[in-house]
Amino acid sequence: MAEAGVGETVASENWAGRLEIRSALDGRVVNGGVERYRQLSNKHLVPLETGTVGEDGIWLKVQTSQSRIEIAQAARTHVFLDGESVAANGGPILEPGYVAQTFACDVKAGSEVRIEKIVSLFTSRDRRVSESGLQARKSIERAARFDDLLQRHVVAWEHYWRRCDIEVADDERTQLILRLHVFHLLQTASLNTIDLDAGIPARGWHGEAYRGHILWDELFILPFLNLRLPDITRALIFYRYRRLPEARWAARQAGYRGAMYPWQSGSDGQEESQRLHLNPLSGRWIPDNSHLQRHINAAIAYNICQYCQATQDTEFLHFYGAEMLVEIARFWASIATYNAELDRYEILGVMGPDEYHDRYPDADEPGLNNNAYTNITAVWVLCHALEVLSRLPAERRRSLLENLHIEQHEIEHWDEISRKMRIVFHDDGIISQFEGYDQLEEFDWEGYRGKYGDIHRLDRILEAEGDTPNRYKASKQADVVMLFYLFSAGELRELFDRLGYPFEYDTIPKNISYYLQRTSHGSTLSRVVHSWVLARSDRARSWSLFRQALESDIADIQGGTTPEGIHLGAMAGTADLVQRGYTGIGVHDDVLWLNPLLPDDLGGLFLRLRFRKHWLEVRVSGDRLKVSTSEDAPGPMKLGFREEVCTLEPGDTREFAL
Amino acid sequence: MAEAGVGETVASENWAGRLEIRSALDGRVVNGGVERYRQLSNKHLVPLETGTVGEDGIWLKVQTSQSRIEIAQAARTHVFLDGESVAANGGPILEPGYVAQTFACDVKAGSEVRIEKIVSLFTSRDRRVSESGLQARKSIERAARFDDLLQRHVVAWEHYWRRCDIEVADDERTQLILRLHVFHLLQTASLNTIDLDAGIPARGWHGEAYRGHILWDELFILPFLNLRLPDITRALIFYRYRRLPEARWAARQAGYRGAMYPWQSGSDGQEESQRLHLNPLSGRWIPDNSHLQRHINAAIAYNICQYCQATQDTEFLHFYGAEMLVEIARFWASIATYNAELDRYEILGVMGPDEYHDRYPDADEPGLNNNAYTNITAVWVLCHALEVLSRLPAERRRSLLENLHIEQHEIEHWDEISRKMRIVFHDDGIISQFEGYDQLEEFDWEGYRGKYGDIHRLDRILEAEGDTPNRYKASKQADVVMLFYLFSAGELRELFDRLGYPFEYDTIPKNISYYLQRTSHGSTLSRVVHSWVLARSDRARSWSLFRQALESDIADIQGGTTPEGIHLGAMAGTADLVQRGYTGIGVHDDVLWLNPLLPDDLGGLFLRLRFRKHWLEVRVSGDRLKVSTSEDAPGPMKLGFREEVCTLEPGDTREFAL
Repeated sequence: MAEAGVGETVASENWAGRLEIRSALDGRVVNGGVERYRQLSNKHLVPLETGTVGEDGIWLKVQTSQSRIEIAQAARTHVFLDGESVAANGGPILEPGYVAQTFACDVKAGSEVRIEKIVSLFTSRDRRVSESGLQARKSIERAARFDDLLQRHVVAWEHYWRRCDIEVADDERTQLILRLHVFHLLQTASLNTIDLDAGIPARGWHGEAYRGHILWDELFILPFLNLRLPDITRALIFYRYRRLPEARWAARQAGYRGAMYPWQSGSDGQEESQRLHLNPLSGRWIPDNSHLQRHINAAIAYNICQYCQATQDTEFLHFYGAEMLVEIARFWASIATYNAELDRYEILGVMGPDEYHDRYPDADEPGLNNNAYTNITAVWVLCHALEVLSRLPAERRRSLLENLHIEQHEIEHWDEISRKMRIVFHDDGIISQFEGYDQLEEFDWEGYRGKYGDIHRLDRILEAEGDTPNRYKASKQADVVMLFYLFSAGELRELFDRLGYPFEYDTIPKNISYYLQRTSHGSTLSRVVHSWVLARSDRARSWSLFRQALESDIADIQGGTTPEGIHLGAMAGTADLVQRGYTGIGVHDDVLWLNPLLPDDLGGLFLRLRFRKHWLEVRVSGDRLKVSTSEDAPGPMKLGFREEVCTLEPGDTREFAL
Repeated sequence: MAEAGVGETVASENWAGRLEIRSALDGRVVNGGVERYRQLSNKHLVPLETGTVGEDGIWLKVQTSQSRIEIAQAARTHVFLDGESVAANGGPILEPGYVAQTFACDVKAGSEVRIEKIVSLFTSRDRRVSESGLQARKSIERAARFDDLLQRHVVAWEHYWRRCDIEVADDERTQLILRLHVFHLLQTASLNTIDLDAGIPARGWHGEAYRGHILWDELFILPFLNLRLPDITRALIFYRYRRLPEARWAARQAGYRGAMYPWQSGSDGQEESQRLHLNPLSGRWIPDNSHLQRHINAAIAYNICQYCQATQDTEFLHFYGAEMLVEIARFWASIATYNAELDRYEILGVMGPDEYHDRYPDADEPGLNNNAYTNITAVWVLCHALEVLSRLPAERRRSLLENLHIEQHEIEHWDEISRKMRIVFHDDGIISQFEGYDQLEEFDWEGYRGKYGDIHRLDRILEAEGDTPNRYKASKQADVVMLFYLFSAGELRELFDRLGYPFEYDTIPKNISYYLQRTSHGSTLSRVVHSWVLARSDRARSWSLFRQALESDIADIQGGTTPEGIHLGAMAGTADLVQRGYTGIGVHDDVLWLNPLLPDDLGGLFLRLRFRKHWLEVRVSGDRLKVSTSEDAPGPMKLGFREEVCTLEPGDTREFAL
C-alpha cells in the first residue's frame, strides 16, 4: 500500500574489523507472540516468489494460507561507509519465503556506517493496484531517497499532532503517556486506513492477542476520534456496515430478526469468539461463552449516534446509519420476550460486559437473564432508532422501510418494548447486574488479596481452585457502572422514567460505590470507566484509577499482557477521559456543552477539536475556560457552558470563570 | 459481491418428449466481442477449482491471468415440471474451468417447465470477504428463493427510478430511449459500485471495445448523476483520487510537475492508450498518439467542480478535491511554456478532443500547438484551483501546501499563466482549433459523401487512400465547440477578458457554425455536444442532432460499434441534455438557476432532482415551469429563474411563466 523506510547509523568508537550487514525480506515469520497460543497453528504465510528488482532491489511475495491474500514486498538497501556507498555482495540470498542481500564494510575506529532501507508493501486487496508484486517492484524503483521519505513522514506526523494532541500542564509523565496512547491509536487507525476495509482491533495490529479480532473496544476509541479525525470514525462504522449482511444472517440463524453483530469478528464479519480458552494457572481448557455478549450491538448503535452528533453527517446517518440502527433495533425487539405476569419485556440468556459471569451457579446452560446494562442499552437503541426514523426525510424513510419490509406495527412494537423493558433492583436502589445477582455470595476480597496478591484475574484463580466467579458478587470489570459512563444522569433519568422505574438523586453514586467494591479490574477498560464516573464525585479516587489506567501498557500492569498487544480501548479511553471527561464535553440538541473540572494534579489543558466543520481551541487553566473558533468557520455555532447557551460566531473567543 | 438470479419458464404447446437442461458455470469464456481484437490475446481467465456445494449447488473459481484476481461463482438451479421439483441427473459435469448440472424432464403437450438459477459471485478484491470461494459457497447456501430475490430486485429498481427517471410528454420513442440510457448508466455505476474501486468505462462493462478502459467520458456522465445520485459521482471522482500517485509519476516522467492523468487507464491508473491501432479499411496498423490528449486533466477538474457545486460537499472539496485540483493546476502550469516574443504562455505538442488531428501535416513528431480547448480549459483549471485554495479553511490550506511543498511564488505563477495563455484566432473571430489550423486545406465534404456515403470515420477512409485528415479542416468531433458545451457565455467572457482577448456577442454562434460544417461526428459524443450548443439558437437542428445521438446505440448508427459496447457518454449525455440542457439548469453563487426551453416536439418534462440535500420536483409543461421542494428539506434554498432569484422554503412550490 505504500513505502516505508528505516535509517540507522552505526558508529565505531574504537573498534576495527569487518562488519557484515544482512538486509532481508522474511516471509517465514510465525505468530508466536502469545505464549498460550503457541501450540496452535501459527504459520499463516505460504511463500510464492522471490527475486531481484533492478540493480539493487529485492522482492518477496507470500500468500495468507486461508484467505489467499497475496502480500508483496520490495526493498532497496543502501549502505554508506563514511559517506561512501557500499555495493551489495554479489547476488541476493534466495530461499523459499526469504530473500536477503549482504553488505560488508571494513570498519576503522571512528568509522560511521549508515544503513538506509526502504520497503514497499502491497497486497492483493489493495485498490488501484494491478498485481501486488508488480506494484511493489514499481513502487520501490520509484521510491524517493530515505531523507525525502523521512521529510514527508515528519510533515505527515506534524499534521496529525496538530489535530490530535492533548496538552496538559504540570504533569510530564501524564503528558508523555497520553501522547504515547494517541500515537498508538493513530498507528492503528489513520487517514491511511480509511480506504482499507479495516476495523479497529482490540490489541492493535502489532499484538497477537485476540488474533486481530474486532470486539467492542471501538466504544472507547471512536469518541476520541469523533472530535479529531471523524473521517476515521466514519470508515470504522462503515466497516460494520459492510458486515450487516453477515449480522443479519447471524440473527436469522439464532432465531432473531434484524442484525446481530458478533462479539468477536474478522474479515467476513462472522462470529469468531473462541469456544474454549486456556487457563494458564490450571492448564485446563474452559468453555468460553463470551459470544453471548449481545451488548456489542448497543455499542455499535451508540457509536453511530456519537459520530453523527459530533459531525452532523446527515448523509451518513440517513443512509448507512439509519439502516444499521433499524436492523439493530429489530434484533433487540426480537430477542426481548414478553413476561405476561409482570407485563414486562425481558432479555434472557445473555452475558453483560462483566466476563466473570456467564451463567447461574447451578445452571447447565450459559447465559444470564435481564442484564441491566444490556436491557437499558437495548431500550436506548430502540428509542434512538425510533427518533432517527421519525426524522428521516420522507423519501429516504420510504425507501428504507420498503427495503427492510418494516411496517407500522413493528415500529409500534419497538415503542412498546422501549417502555416495558425489565430492570431488576435489589438492596434499596441497587440496579442488579442481572436478575438473581442478589442471591450470589459476597466474595472474600481481603482473603484472596492476602493469599494471591494480584487478583485481577480472579476467574483464573477460582477456576484453578475448582471454584467459579459465577458464585460471587465479584466483577471483572464495569457492567452496571458502564451505564453512567455512556449516559448522563439526565439521559438515564429519561430512560428510567420511560420505563416507569425510579431514578433517585443518589442512584448513580450508590451504584458506583456498590460495584466498585466488587470489581477486580480484570479488564484494562474497567479503570477507565470507573475513573470517568468518579471524576466529579471522588476526584482523588478517580485520579488514582486514571493514573493506573494510564500505566496499563507502558508499565504492563497486568504483568505480561502488553507484549501480547497494546490495550487500545484503555489507551484511547484515557485520552478521551481527558478530552471529554475532564472538559465535560457533550453534545445535545445541536449544542456543544462544556463543563470542565480538572483533577488537582493537572494545572491546565489545551485541545484543538473538530466539531461540525468548526475548528475549536479549548483551553482550561486554573479557574478559566477559553473557547475559540477559527475566522474561517462555516458559520455560527452554539456553545453551552453549565446552564447557559451562547453563540460563537466565526473568529469568536469566549472566556468563562470556573 | 452479491447474488443474482434468473427465472425462465418454458411451455410446451403441442410437443412431447425429453427436455434436457444444462445449467453451467463457465470459466472458459474468451473476450471475442470485438472483431479486430480477435487476433490479440483474448483468454484472460485461468481455471482454479470446481466443485459442488451442499446437495444441489455447484461452484467454480478462476483467476485473471495477469492481475491474479480470483473470481468465484456458486450456483443453485431448481427445475420444476408442472410445479414438481426435478432433481439433477447424478453428479455435476466437472471440466477444467467448467462445471454444470443437467436436468431431464419428460414433457407432455401443455407442460410447463420452470427453471430458476441463482448465482453468487465474489472476487478476491471484494471487501468483507475472507476467501472468495468460501464466500460464494456460503452465499449460495444462504440465498433466498428466486421469488424473494426478484421481489428485492423490483423494489431496488423502483427506488432507482424514483431518483433517476426523466419523464417526457408526447414522444414515446424518446421516452423509451432515455430510460434505456438511464438503465444502462445504472447498470454500469450504481450504489452497488460505490464501495468497489471502479471507474466508469467508456463502453460499459459488457462491451469489450477499449478493453474496459476509463477515458474522459465521465465528463458527459457525471453531470447527470450529480443531480440524482451524487454519491456515485463522489465514488467515481475518488477512483481518480486513488490514482493520483500514478498521475504524479506520469507527470514527473514526462518532465512536468503535479499530476498528469492518462488518456486511457485501467486498474493501476497508468497510461493504457494503444500506441498502434488497426484501420480495418486498409488492414494497416497506424501509430496512435491519442495519449497526447492531456485535456482529460481539465475534464477531471471540471467534474470535481460540478460535483461540489451540486452537493456543496465541502469536506470532499477541501480534502480530496483540493488536492487533485492543485496537482492538476500544477501540471498545466508546468506544461505551459513562455513565449517571450508574444509575452504569452503556450501549450505545445498535445492533441485536442478532435482525434482526426494528431500532428501537423508535414511534421515528424506528433502533437499540435495551442489547441484552444486545451489552453482555455487549462486556464479555467488554474483559476478554479486558485479560487478553491483561497477559500480553504486556514488549517487545511496550511496542511495541503505543506504536503505538496507549494510556495507562494508557485501560486503567483499560476495566476500569471491564467492571464497570459495564448489563444489563436483566424478568419475574424474564429477560435483556431489549434495554431496553424487556418493553413489546412478545406475538405471536400460533398465529394466524399457522394463517394462513400457514410463518412463519419473519415480518418479510416483517408488513411486507406494514403491520405490523412491532418491535412484538412475536418474534425471527427467537437473540439472548439466543447467550450460552449462546458461553459456559459458569461463564464467564457470572463475567461477571455482575463486573457485580454475579445469575446463578441456573435463569437459563439459564429464558431459553432464554422466548425459544425467541418465535423463528421465520428464520435457519438459529438452530436450530443452540437445539439446542446444549438439548443437555444437553432432548435430544429439541435433536435435533429439530439434524435440522432439518441439512436446511437439502439439503432447502432455507426454500423457495428454497439455490439462492441454501448456508448455510455452519449447515453448519459442525451439524458443530461434533457435534464440540464432543456431546463437550462446551472449552479452559480449557491443559486440553482433554471431557464427551460423545450424542443417543439416535447410537450413537457418532469424531473425529480437532488440538489444540496434538497429533493426538488421540476415540471415544465407548455408555458409553465413549476418547482417544488419537499416539506422536510433541510432549510431554504435559492432558486434563480432567468434574471430573478427567489428563496424556496421547505415545502414551497413556485410557478413561472415561460
